[in-house]
Amino acid sequence: MNPTVSRFQRLLSGLVTILAVAVSSVANAGDALPSWNEGPTKKAILEFVTAVTDEKGKGYVEPAERIAVFDNDGTLWVEQPVYTQLTFALDRVKKLAPQHPEWKTQEPFKSALAGDMKGVMASGQKGLLEMVLATHTGMTAEQFAETVTTWLASARHPKFGRPYTELVYQPQLELLAYLRDHGFKTFIVSGGGIEFMRPFTERVYGIPPEQVVGSSVKTEFQMKDGKPVLVRIPKLNFVDDKAGKPVGIYEHIGRRPILAFGNSDSDMQMIEYTTGGEGRRLGLFVHHTDADREYAYDRKSHVGTLDKVLDQAAANGWIIVDMKQDWKSVFPD
Amino acid sequence: MNPTVSRFQRLLSGLVTILAVAVSSVANAGDALPSWNEGPTKKAILEFVTAVTDEKGKGYVEPAERIAVFDNDGTLWVEQPVYTQLTFALDRVKKLAPQHPEWKTQEPFKSALAGDMKGVMASGQKGLLEMVLATHTGMTAEQFAETVTTWLASARHPKFGRPYTELVYQPQLELLAYLRDHGFKTFIVSGGGIEFMRPFTERVYGIPPEQVVGSSVKTEFQMKDGKPVLVRIPKLNFVDDKAGKPVGIYEHIGRRPILAFGNSDSDMQMIEYTTGGEGRRLGLFVHHTDADREYAYDRKSHVGTLDKVLDQAAANGWIIVDMKQDWKSVFPD
Repeated sequence: MNPTVSRFQRLLSGLVTILAVAVSSVANAGDALPSWNEGPTKKAILEFVTAVTDEKGKGYVEPAERIAVFDNDGTLWVEQPVYTQLTFALDRVKKLAPQHPEWKTQEPFKSALAGDMKGVMASGQKGLLEMVLATHTGMTAEQFAETVTTWLASARHPKFGRPYTELVYQPQLELLAYLRDHGFKTFIVSGGGIEFMRPFTERVYGIPPEQVVGSSVKTEFQMKDGKPVLVRIPKLNFVDDKAGKPVGIYEHIGRRPILAFGNSDSDMQMIEYTTGGEGRRLGLFVHHTDADREYAYDRKSHVGTLDKVLDQAAANGWIIVDMKQDWKSVFPD
Repeated sequence: MNPTVSRFQRLLSGLVTILAVAVSSVANAGDALPSWNEGPTKKAILEFVTAVTDEKGKGYVEPAERIAVFDNDGTLWVEQPVYTQLTFALDRVKKLAPQHPEWKTQEPFKSALAGDMKGVMASGQKGLLEMVLATHTGMTAEQFAETVTTWLASARHPKFGRPYTELVYQPQLELLAYLRDHGFKTFIVSGGGIEFMRPFTERVYGIPPEQVVGSSVKTEFQMKDGKPVLVRIPKLNFVDDKAGKPVGIYEHIGRRPILAFGNSDSDMQMIEYTTGGEGRRLGLFVHHTDADREYAYDRKSHVGTLDKVLDQAAANGWIIVDMKQDWKSVFPD
């Protein structure tokens, strides 16, 4: 490269850096987490981010290592009265029923068609898995993504009457953006189906598909009508839950996160793995304590059980986020 | 936020954008691919990137969808006379032999200890897999990464006498940087072990661990001496090769790439999947034609066989990159 050009370029680069820092300082003059009430939780988050981004401090973490992982159901969006993906599966059963006359007598499909949630749940893990495989496979990757997108556009939550993608937690949207503004890479690590989440995570959370880790079915590369496609096969591939979460993190991310946010005992291993590393770490759990604005549940809930975590949080330095106390608003307006 | 602050911030942001564009134009005034000779290959690459980044053109692709995938062995670094990871496994066998007296009589370990490469290869896929599992598992994720890093620091290539991480292709380093400068996200999609690559890809290629897709063994979350760790288990988890490559892309990335670069028939499905999508796509293969500066091999090579691809490239519009003709230099100085 021409040396004059190169010198000019360096000069401009310097200017850009100076101005970018100025912009970022001005941005920080405001409150980056307006939906978080002042208190020990917000303070702990702000202090953690300050510590790991302070180049002169001993808690400093290189930007590349600033990996933050978030559970999805109950951590980023509502998971009551049942997981959104289960509602999707039930709606799919109804839609596909005409092609499956055998479902009229076969559980859990029979209960699903009758709208009998208890009957569906009575079929246990095995029955639920069968229903998920029957409704989530047998099509190409693109077809499934389209089915999810179409469903999310029309489905409404039974309590709030809003689309599920609007029932995401405003304080968490702010936290995700705040972390990214401070050089973090944000990931979802969920027990939910990876391909059920990917069609909306970028638009809703600013998290691209390649930063979503989840449970999955097997897929197969095939040529269909001369076109190369991936076909979803009715076989379980990976369960990204409990002890599977650190495994999913290792496979997809290949680094130990420094911040992890969950809301149930199923997230405990992920938070253990995260906070068990060297240096500054932060582990948090949403505690659903707000029956008015959202839901109140913990130890005995059939969805998002938060029990062991409540017993072990203090000893491990994990932060229990009290939805009612800590969140000024729950959903976006 | 204070309205004055906000206005000031917008002003600064505007300035940053203007200057950033200026820097980028000046940078483009030089040749971003100096190690690529002028000719149809370089022209095709530059034209493709121009087309997908021209907001007013009909080939425009949103930055988020600019996914580029690269095979590793033979595409980004040297793969002859044998895959680097196999050399690593052989060295590990020698190192671990004192703890495994049974290896003295057991193939492929016996041949490995005798330095008899033909004997090792004679054990076939099954024998090689056994050797890889025996040398790549039974330790934590961190311990394995450290073993790889230590080995890479001291191992030397038999022909070039240089560390393997210096035997990466200079034209490809430039291409990776050029793509990233144009909003692409670059990934490795290799048949090699994901955890064998991750310790060096960021430093050497500028590709972070979370953008590396590869073959893997099973891992298990365990508490060891009160510390949460991931332990590598001697079971194959995923083979990211041939028809497995599009599957690996779907699982890790969740989008169809728009550019794919390989060098052998094992990359064919990945390039088919990439170029089989809608809109502008680019598929390329390195053809090793340079016995002087590197190696010359294709249809009959035991490593990196390039045979079917050579027959089908023209009909599919895939670009065969002729190392001798197209690359001004092969390795970094």
